[in-house]
Amino acid sequence: MERGRGLDHFFAPRSVAVVGATADPAKGGYYIMANMLESFQGPVYPVNPGRDEVQGVKCYPSVRDIPGGVELAIVFVPAARVPGVLRDCAEAGVKAAVIESGGFAEVGESGRELTRQCREIAAASGMRLWGPNCTGLVNTDPFIFTPFMRARKVRERLEPGNLGIIAQSGMLAAGFMFQYVLSGFFKVSKACAIGNKIDVDEVEVLEYLSRDPKTRAVVAYLESIDRGREFLEVARGMRGRKPLVVLKGGRHEEAARAALSHTASMAGSDEVVDGALRQAGVIRVEDFHDLMNLGKAFSLRPEPCRLTSRRGDGVALVTVTGGGGVVSTDLLRSSGLSIASLHKNTLEELSRLFPPWMPPSNPVDIWPTIEQRGLGAFSEVLRVVLADDAVDGVILLPFASRQLEHFPFEDIGALARESGKAVVSWVFGDLRFFLAYEERLREHGIPVFIDLRSCVLALKAFLTYARHATMA
Amino acid sequence: MERGRGLDHFFAPRSVAVVGATADPAKGGYYIMANMLESFQGPVYPVNPGRDEVQGVKCYPSVRDIPGGVELAIVFVPAARVPGVLRDCAEAGVKAAVIESGGFAEVGESGRELTRQCREIAAASGMRLWGPNCTGLVNTDPFIFTPFMRARKVRERLEPGNLGIIAQSGMLAAGFMFQYVLSGFFKVSKACAIGNKIDVDEVEVLEYLSRDPKTRAVVAYLESIDRGREFLEVARGMRGRKPLVVLKGGRHEEAARAALSHTASMAGSDEVVDGALRQAGVIRVEDFHDLMNLGKAFSLRPEPCRLTSRRGDGVALVTVTGGGGVVSTDLLRSSGLSIASLHKNTLEELSRLFPPWMPPSNPVDIWPTIEQRGLGAFSEVLRVVLADDAVDGVILLPFASRQLEHFPFEDIGALARESGKAVVSWVFGDLRFFLAYEERLREHGIPVFIDLRSCVLALKAFLTYARHATMA
Repeated sequence: MERGRGLDHFFAPRSVAVVGATADPAKGGYYIMANMLESFQGPVYPVNPGRDEVQGVKCYPSVRDIPGGVELAIVFVPAARVPGVLRDCAEAGVKAAVIESGGFAEVGESGRELTRQCREIAAASGMRLWGPNCTGLVNTDPFIFTPFMRARKVRERLEPGNLGIIAQSGMLAAGFMFQYVLSGFFKVSKACAIGNKIDVDEVEVLEYLSRDPKTRAVVAYLESIDRGREFLEVARGMRGRKPLVVLKGGRHEEAARAALSHTASMAGSDEVVDGALRQAGVIRVEDFHDLMNLGKAFSLRPEPCRLTSRRGDGVALVTVTGGGGVVSTDLLRSSGLSIASLHKNTLEELSRLFPPWMPPSNPVDIWPTIEQRGLGAFSEVLRVVLADDAVDGVILLPFASRQLEHFPFEDIGALARESGKAVVSWVFGDLRFFLAYEERLREHGIPVFIDLRSCVLALKAFLTYARHATMA
Repeated sequence: MERGRGLDHFFAPRSVAVVGATADPAKGGYYIMANMLESFQGPVYPVNPGRDEVQGVKCYPSVRDIPGGVELAIVFVPAARVPGVLRDCAEAGVKAAVIESGGFAEVGESGRELTRQCREIAAASGMRLWGPNCTGLVNTDPFIFTPFMRARKVRERLEPGNLGIIAQSGMLAAGFMFQYVLSGFFKVSKACAIGNKIDVDEVEVLEYLSRDPKTRAVVAYLESIDRGREFLEVARGMRGRKPLVVLKGGRHEEAARAALSHTASMAGSDEVVDGALRQAGVIRVEDFHDLMNLGKAFSLRPEPCRLTSRRGDGVALVTVTGGGGVVSTDLLRSSGLSIASLHKNTLEELSRLFPPWMPPSNPVDIWPTIEQRGLGAFSEVLRVVLADDAVDGVILLPFASRQLEHFPFEDIGALARESGKAVVSWVFGDLRFFLAYEERLREHGIPVFIDLRSCVLALKAFLTYARHATMA
């Protein structure tokens, strides 16, 4: 049996029981039920021994009482009652259970005993377990949404996308779903909050996503990697084929201790982790913001960019501000990228577009050219720069104002597509015009950022991934 | 004569001439005139030999023709005509001139000759020069706004504030004024785009701001520091007294070259610059976003925070997410701060607020406490934590949702004020609720950030500045 296949019971079940479903909107079980009813295509059965009906649906005292059985159970009852519920599930032939309840290994001896009992039941029955202490999972096609928070708006906006998300922290996973999905930052294929992972773990989920055709890139927040060898094996299989970005908490000793009390995770020595991840082709970041920004970048452009320079790290800047060029250059160099030395004939072609008193160089300061030729100068200059073999990637730095209506979006998009090279943009100025600009470049697979550091980070990630692809 | 006094002619002139004023809205001279007419309290005289009237105001062929003379001239004519204009100004007894035109030293030999001529005229007459190749300056009290861009919205929102801004790049200075002023990020006292600085330079402007009672903190973007010794002297005088944050472009060799072609600046060896700046108490950053975030932080809290731990770097995290605690801990440690070891009696007091199954530690994960006691748990826990001598600063990490209406803003504000300690916040989740949260904490001098890295950066800056103040 291929590893990870069993996860289909979680991501695409034919029927679902919600154990702990309730009519009380102050409780999480209410929202799990409401969310499932509103979005899941198959039958949803509430389970609660105290009720005949929940939210208009016939309610069962136990999973065992559901006629015909169910494939997946979502469990949200106090920790002490979870083993009993799981025994019922196993007896009823349930294939998989998402346990969202907290109060397990993260709270000491009694929790560890409950964990042991759950593992035993799963081992004896073959039923797969997800969690506990988590918000479960989201799949956008076919749709399933297990988190226990009120989420009508999120579901409405959760159009199927290509980004896979793995998070060991349920609160964060949910928070970021809200934050980034609501702001149209990216579109998700599957989001997985894995919690204490008493059975299904990051390795199995990652492998599932690595083979999922609907997932074109993966971002993961992990506090521990318990089966390091297997994790690296899966990561190596994705190297240059499907981008994988990891935020690994617990880099410092104190953080590792915090992770221990949070999800009972043991974190490895960070130097070892860091080197191993890098060798396996994983792109590592240090902040959630960076994780989400690279998620956005790779979800817009999951295929590797084309490299033409010898080292594959040559960048050209096309900027309306000399100062932006100076600081970008510093940030590019600090991040290990190079400022491309433009070829002689590139400079000659640029000088035809430049005013006579201004010799072109890289960063390419096109303000005087724009004053003479309008914003079309951006595509004219980009065409010349992308044709240079020394240039692997380009950063566009325009000024946000009403004038951006006249930005040559279509030409820029076509040039980026035809060249196959990495193009990213940072924009500053009047932010009322930011969103329209961002959206129009997003349609062409070009990510736009509101800060320069994120822009450089994305370009670096694109070029790193492209190098992995050429070596694959 | 005290150095820098002469700058009053720029920041608070009694009368102003706009040389290059025009009725053509396609030209920058139109907006300089319109901006000045709408905002300046004293007389504004347009100067343009081709017109009798500009925007309803009598126009003069030369500054010499203005009856009674003027104190400040704003000059926006082609570079080649600038020396002639300045000769007229000098003859007419003008005290100071802002030259916004480009085409000087940054464009080679002819520009250098024009620069030489301008210097000669200034030296002979005692008239002070600002620029060229810049957007000039803004003072919010009394109001003067010299930039050549359409800026009605910016002017409307430019309420007097306490942050001084110095930028060597005019486009950037203007862009950031738009971006951050429009979004209510901070309120400005004076903004200074110094351009090629053929006379007034960063040292003189910084000294002026260091003595300006309306300016409580200064952020500066510089491509070169030409009079290094004098700059450091001014910076040392501000150490622990008025926060100074600097983004110094040209850290890497290529960036220094880019700076040379941008504003004809020579940048010093970065190692030397870096060490000297740090010793002088300057807080250095690497990106515009960071510069603006620290501007916001110090403008909210310009006075030094109180330190109580031995090393003055102890941080407590009060978080609704364990994962946020883990990553914060990593970022805090990477930035050189410590996770405070809470005293035994602090932990005892916290355990009274915590559920019995959860032993308190730092990061202080208060989710279970909130579930039991509501969001008031934030202030209850903050009170305990701030009383601990090991804690110099606190990061608050709540989840953004409708529930934040019930956040104890007043109590948190009072605790932060009474303790005198640094309190900052990062918030994640549903961003529709971010702004209201941000605004209400801002009223209490607590800066809120949308990414954790910026939050850690601000706390680090607060603690560094407070250490300078205790050593001052």
